[in-house]
Amino acid sequence: MNDATTRDDGFLGGRLVLRQPARGYRAGTDAVMLAAACPARPGERVLELGCGAGVALFCLGARVPGVALTGLERQEELAALARHNVAATGIAARIVTGDLAQMPAALRAESFDHVIANPPFFASGTRAPDAARAAARHEDTALESWIDAGLRRLRPGGGLTLIHRAEALDRILVALAGRAGAVSLLPLAARQGHDAGRVIVTARKGARGGLRLHAPFVLHARPAHERDCEDLSAAARAVLRDGAAIVAGAEREREVSGDSGAETCCTGSIDP
Amino acid sequence: MNDATTRDDGFLGGRLVLRQPARGYRAGTDAVMLAAACPARPGERVLELGCGAGVALFCLGARVPGVALTGLERQEELAALARHNVAATGIAARIVTGDLAQMPAALRAESFDHVIANPPFFASGTRAPDAARAAARHEDTALESWIDAGLRRLRPGGGLTLIHRAEALDRILVALAGRAGAVSLLPLAARQGHDAGRVIVTARKGARGGLRLHAPFVLHARPAHERDCEDLSAAARAVLRDGAAIVAGAEREREVSGDSGAETCCTGSIDP
Repeated sequence: MNDATTRDDGFLGGRLVLRQPARGYRAGTDAVMLAAACPARPGERVLELGCGAGVALFCLGARVPGVALTGLERQEELAALARHNVAATGIAARIVTGDLAQMPAALRAESFDHVIANPPFFASGTRAPDAARAAARHEDTALESWIDAGLRRLRPGGGLTLIHRAEALDRILVALAGRAGAVSLLPLAARQGHDAGRVIVTARKGARGGLRLHAPFVLHARPAHERDCEDLSAAARAVLRDGAAIVAGAEREREVSGDSGAETCCTGSIDP
Repeated sequence: MNDATTRDDGFLGGRLVLRQPARGYRAGTDAVMLAAACPARPGERVLELGCGAGVALFCLGARVPGVALTGLERQEELAALARHNVAATGIAARIVTGDLAQMPAALRAESFDHVIANPPFFASGTRAPDAARAAARHEDTALESWIDAGLRRLRPGGGLTLIHRAEALDRILVALAGRAGAVSLLPLAARQGHDAGRVIVTARKGARGGLRLHAPFVLHARPAHERDCEDLSAAARAVLRDGAAIVAGAEREREVSGDSGAETCCTGSIDP
């Protein structure tokens, strides 16, 4: 792509500048949130399915030094942008052009500590006129195939991290059933009190039981929008501007550590 | 049961006095929340699976006049208490003694507009020494069988409403898959920022898609417990003391109706 068809967007408060298509689908908040939710540690191997221009990969690489990043992308022009971003950022990542529904042999021979993905959202409806955008937004490959491909590429005990529409939560949990456990659900809500628009799901391959439904991560601080682009909650600002990790249940942990009171006098406490 | 083995507990701010076993499992917050979440209207037929002494049934009957209530209970002594509570409250309900895993013929011949249930929580672990309590708390009948029995008893389009540990959300959604849709998930959290301890799931038999993950219903007002039994949130007080219905997403609806601002300037708004 030449300069007219691409643009450089800033992420993590401008610390990361990544080239993306100027028109059509561009990664944004969801990709940054996905990277922030992946609990990868230095030295671990991470595969992103459908990495696009690599926004989630590079955000993860910027946060966790020494993580071994691999991105799989079906569209050659996006894979080329991702390779450009390797050079531009100095964050090492191997970008493989290929289709997750026909996993390239090189990746079939490998296993990973973590797989991350932000699968396309829309199973039907109006398709974007731009082909690349349409591919990134529409489910040419079923959500279930993304989850299957991700689980196959994980080592036993490895972690799958997905961000998707909250509406697809049932499909996601059905696809994980019997194959992964220790599921952690983090609802993402635009504002306090709103239904979740997105959900971040993490699960461990081969684990059983142990599902946790966390308090929502609330993106905007004010109860209604006031035409101010920096109306972010403190938690969202930490992730989107400062590159912090998302630690689900963190608020709870903090509070419990300072709370020695036994809840014995209330009948029907709903914390089991 | 004689007076030594039962006690009369107040519900809905004391407006409802119900006889329960003095020892062992007694219904509490969960049963009241279940009743508050069932969207039954006057004249509709509601079946509760495992109704115990009928706390959820009578709370529902107290809120929705003219609803036709049926309770199925396997333990004869609990069914007898439920029948006592019919007479004591003046709220009509038919109490059937029987096992949902071997549905009584009379109920097999009927269908309902709503089925509600608060299935036992614990699949394993230490069993309560009291037999009735153990049966109410432990999964002698698998959660999946409760859901199956509930769906079978619903008319097409009828609504299933369950309250259960949030940890079982994956099992619930798997059991509903392909048989019910329009799933609504209401996390119940003891306090703001805590993981959900319970989840209320509603689903419509034969519907497809349309899952909604609502903002949590928060039970307690203060960030940590201060040994004060009336530390309830305003929402919890409305349900538990004043007998109000739970309207999931209500906060959102109120706000949206007063919010005409378009959210166009923020990239990556997570409300689709």
